Amino acid sequence: MARWEGDTRGRLEHAALALFEEQGYDRTTVAQIARRANLTERSFYRWFTDKREVLFGGTEDFQNHLVSAIDAVPAGTPPLPTLLAAFATVPEVIRPRDFLLTRSAVIAANPPLHERELIKLAALSDALAAALVRRGCDEQTARLATDAGLAVLRLASKRALTDEHADFVQVLAASAADLLTVAAEAAPRSP
Amino acid sequence: MARWEGDTRGRLEHAALALFEEQGYDRTTVAQIARRANLTERSFYRWFTDKREVLFGGTEDFQNHLVSAIDAVPAGTPPLPTLLAAFATVPEVIRPRDFLLTRSAVIAANPPLHERELIKLAALSDALAAALVRRGCDEQTARLATDAGLAVLRLASKRALTDEHADFVQVLAASAADLLTVAAEAAPRSP
Repeated sequence: MARWEGDTRGRLEHAALALFEEQGYDRTTVAQIARRANLTERSFYRWFTDKREVLFGGTEDFQNHLVSAIDAVPAGTPPLPTLLAAFATVPEVIRPRDFLLTRSAVIAANPPLHERELIKLAALSDALAAALVRRGCDEQTARLATDAGLAVLRLASKRALTDEHADFVQVLAASAADLLTVAAEAAPRSP
Repeated sequence: MARWEGDTRGRLEHAALALFEEQGYDRTTVAQIARRANLTERSFYRWFTDKREVLFGGTEDFQNHLVSAIDAVPAGTPPLPTLLAAFATVPEVIRPRDFLLTRSAVIAANPPLHERELIKLAALSDALAAALVRRGCDEQTARLATDAGLAVLRLASKRALTDEHADFVQVLAASAADLLTVAAEAAPRSP
């Protein structure tokens, strides 16, 4: 594994996740993470406020990235296609697949982390809905489209994480088509 | 206001919500709630573990009610219509409109309560998806339909709370139709 300075953050993340998985999140200390990464605690604190930030530090950047991507979608695009166009850029900013898989296992095993994840997701949802409203969408439709869009993103992420050969943009389109199928079954008659 | 024993719980709820709204949730004590309701603290603790349970005590019953309602839907009904049929029974079990409006204002003004609400909603979502899986739905479709269904329920609840003359079942159907409209705009071509 490369030892150059630019990889410090990645080495710390890798060491932290390995320890969280091996011995549990609660039992892992910053000192242990630094030791496993062959770095000092001081280096750790140059990149993260605490061990929780290894898991959640990227979520604000992720949210800002999506909001900017929404702002860049051509005016007049309907709300759900706007969100999907933004989500299609997700592979540009997310962590590698093995990081995400371990991260999600660690979070699922620890209720307070799971709660933190829910709170971050709710903040993301509010930010996306607000971005749609700024584009002229009414409040209720913005919220409905955001809830629908996040349902599609959740399904697509799950599929992309389970199948390493999946193309994210294709999986996203297939998940949106599945949402349409599910929604159409609840229509009283064909449109 | 009636003073018979059966109304004790309602009087405590009413007093608690009025105080939460007037002086804030954090500043309100159980002693104050009991005094406002002309009851003893002991009566309060006969109905609630603590003041937070005034806001969240009903959520477990609500979840159990919805799961039973899902179980009662005829086999072979697709997932989203199954959820909507269950949601259509919501007016049987929810608190009066003024209770819900005040409750939601109190929760919105207090981040820890808002977090508690998110956690309860995630538990509800898991329970609904599990109920669909028990009916033979695959895991991914169950999750997608649940996310879509809760988006419809959220919109319908908002509309029903804003318009006191609204018929909940009609509002629910209209919200499901809106979801279909939003989802169809993301389809690459007409089906």
